Amino acid sequence: MKTLLSGGVVVTCDESHTIYDPGDVLIDGDHIAWVGPPYEGQCDVRLSAAGTLLMPGLINAHSHSGMSIMRSLADDSDLRTFLDERVWPREATLEPDDVYAGSVLSAIEMLKSGVTTYVDMYFFAESLLRAALDTGARALITPTILPVPPLGDVLGTWEQQLVRTLDFCERWEGEAGRIHTGVAPHAPYTVPLPALTDIAAEARRIERPLNIHLVETAWEREAFNARGLGSTAVALQNAGFFEGPVIAAHSIWLDAGDITIYRDRNVGIAHCPQSNAKLGCGVAPVAAMLERGVNVGLGTDGAATNNNLDLWEDLRLAPLLAKVTALDPKPLPAAQALWMATRLGALAIHRPDLGVLAPGYRADIIMLDLADTTAVPIFEPQTYISHLVYSMDRRLVDRVWVNGELVVRGGEILTVDEEAALREAQRVAMGLSQRAMV
Amino acid sequence: MKTLLSGGVVVTCDESHTIYDPGDVLIDGDHIAWVGPPYEGQCDVRLSAAGTLLMPGLINAHSHSGMSIMRSLADDSDLRTFLDERVWPREATLEPDDVYAGSVLSAIEMLKSGVTTYVDMYFFAESLLRAALDTGARALITPTILPVPPLGDVLGTWEQQLVRTLDFCERWEGEAGRIHTGVAPHAPYTVPLPALTDIAAEARRIERPLNIHLVETAWEREAFNARGLGSTAVALQNAGFFEGPVIAAHSIWLDAGDITIYRDRNVGIAHCPQSNAKLGCGVAPVAAMLERGVNVGLGTDGAATNNNLDLWEDLRLAPLLAKVTALDPKPLPAAQALWMATRLGALAIHRPDLGVLAPGYRADIIMLDLADTTAVPIFEPQTYISHLVYSMDRRLVDRVWVNGELVVRGGEILTVDEEAALREAQRVAMGLSQRAMV
Repeated sequence: MKTLLSGGVVVTCDESHTIYDPGDVLIDGDHIAWVGPPYEGQCDVRLSAAGTLLMPGLINAHSHSGMSIMRSLADDSDLRTFLDERVWPREATLEPDDVYAGSVLSAIEMLKSGVTTYVDMYFFAESLLRAALDTGARALITPTILPVPPLGDVLGTWEQQLVRTLDFCERWEGEAGRIHTGVAPHAPYTVPLPALTDIAAEARRIERPLNIHLVETAWEREAFNARGLGSTAVALQNAGFFEGPVIAAHSIWLDAGDITIYRDRNVGIAHCPQSNAKLGCGVAPVAAMLERGVNVGLGTDGAATNNNLDLWEDLRLAPLLAKVTALDPKPLPAAQALWMATRLGALAIHRPDLGVLAPGYRADIIMLDLADTTAVPIFEPQTYISHLVYSMDRRLVDRVWVNGELVVRGGEILTVDEEAALREAQRVAMGLSQRAMV
Repeated sequence: MKTLLSGGVVVTCDESHTIYDPGDVLIDGDHIAWVGPPYEGQCDVRLSAAGTLLMPGLINAHSHSGMSIMRSLADDSDLRTFLDERVWPREATLEPDDVYAGSVLSAIEMLKSGVTTYVDMYFFAESLLRAALDTGARALITPTILPVPPLGDVLGTWEQQLVRTLDFCERWEGEAGRIHTGVAPHAPYTVPLPALTDIAAEARRIERPLNIHLVETAWEREAFNARGLGSTAVALQNAGFFEGPVIAAHSIWLDAGDITIYRDRNVGIAHCPQSNAKLGCGVAPVAAMLERGVNVGLGTDGAATNNNLDLWEDLRLAPLLAKVTALDPKPLPAAQALWMATRLGALAIHRPDLGVLAPGYRADIIMLDLADTTAVPIFEPQTYISHLVYSMDRRLVDRVWVNGELVVRGGEILTVDEEAALREAQRVAMGLSQRAMV
């Protein structure tokens, strides 16, 4: 079926930052068939996009969807305290239905706010899968391999976890045209280096990307470097970890040599400015990475450290932090930030079929209402890009299509019962806290 | 008339961060008559607040409401370029109706997002006044005194501007119970020191607060200090500028001695983290200021540098920046940040009758919808404070009362025609750009 979205402001997020005003977008099944000035050809359904802005759905390059049932548990504590004392004891008691409830809560929030694709790193992969399938989201699901106690006692050895992950990937890749899979060893400080070598080899064998937390804290950098293996990036390169596609979350404490390795090995970065700031971890050198040609996407991280999954906040915070740390307003201009949330994010997560409104790409599209104080005035077409990055927000997301299917209309989710999902998330969060206190 | 808001979660923002769940709030005319657990007395109207959160309206301690018609004009340029090349040439052609249109746009945005009071520093004070009166906002209007070209050529000498300001203050103070006034010399780099002395004396004579931009940039600090008068704060103290109440916007580049002066002289700070970050100006040492007992409120600054007037973003950004600059997640915890946006903000702008839900205070109250992914789950009453600061946002503002009057219901402004206001803002912005190009 061909659906024409007609007469909107079309922000394509292509390499030239092309804007059509007015412009049309033609959806044909699960992909985009035409983008440009008013379309003259045939279609089955025509929807007026007048007074709205059409753009590619946002890409959340790093999340832990199951963690929304732990929202705000981590405030004002550092990463190690947060993990050791608050999160891991609770996670050790998790059950599949808990993770499903948290993941649905997350997917609802993301879809309603215009995130059409998220990279998910968490446990109980079948629960994550079911949440993405039920809500209509596109998800790159990367089951976490974490072999340290207390969670490791439940999940088994890294070899056992890897076998389950590989099985998951082979079974579900491509499901419904919007489930993608990958392999996620947690971090170099929780998974031994020889295991990382073997895990990477298996990921390459089944042609799936790796997803890992890298140098999120100065502590991690110092502890790793003290082992005499070079920086984390050097050691991982020598371990063969970068020979296939990798998504490296955080990557705050990189030096110039590390950035060169990322570029040469096409390592994509999931920059998570809000989580990194809130945990006091630091500010990744994003402007330097972009200048060197590294693909940097944006991630929210989990709701326990952010504390929501609103990628618009990271879209705004990334340039703010780049500017204030440089004491210079010029780094990371608006168009570049918007590109990180869309097309560059797609490249960072190794999904070149996403992140741009252009023929042949996946029909992951969002429509924003422009009748709002934050979208006025407009001086020239490029003003829309400024407003998107620095002024507008998730409130304005009116419709969302994923893989050509309408999943949000009038700002409401169409695929699941949101009220029931809120009640269920509250119920399982209470159960989790009770079990963790025993 | 007595209106009872019944059965909500009441976040009082008092000194103990008291929360009643469930709790009631009784509005009696323009003030709050009762706050606490379910109220047993009489009332004229009873409104169920079940499923909502009640709290004091947010206080925006620094804005330039007329500038919304220049939204996004300042991107990726420094403060001096922004003022000299983009803003001042346009402002030199401003007419009263332009400022009214911009100010209405701003007031609508602020009221709908739960800001009930804003400090306004701009030109054409009668236009600012009319916008606040028409929209139903509470505003502390401080006409800007700016005697440098090109604007100074239009506005006259500082003496002429001061006379007009004093007249405005005497005429309109207390209007409708929600118009407050003050005197705003622009900055120490645009108004000569002897003039600041005289302006401060006049403000004291008529018992009005002063409002000024202070040490927003490292450049300003260095340029001022090079004059041999000590730091800006020392020089202003010696000039008698701090002998009455002062609101000092920005105040980024203070040293420990400056902070002591602020505390001893009860100078209130309008901390504007988003504007300061976007312009690459720096991060004010907020945690140190709070520790020393300085009253620090939050401000959005104008929409040309922010680029909106969403104080929720500053409420979130203030602790994020405090943590990431300290590389420590503990500074500026959630309750303290929320206090800056409410009660401490009221004290910073010298309006001790605002910013808290308690008997005898002004009935400036907002009601937020809790049926949202970002407000779930709740572990304990203090979780609401975490969610307010780190997860929830302006979308959830459902009703707003200012001075006891309902001005927003169902998230919609009741006092003015928003669609007409958006059209008018676009029209005057186009006219302004055309005149500036001539």
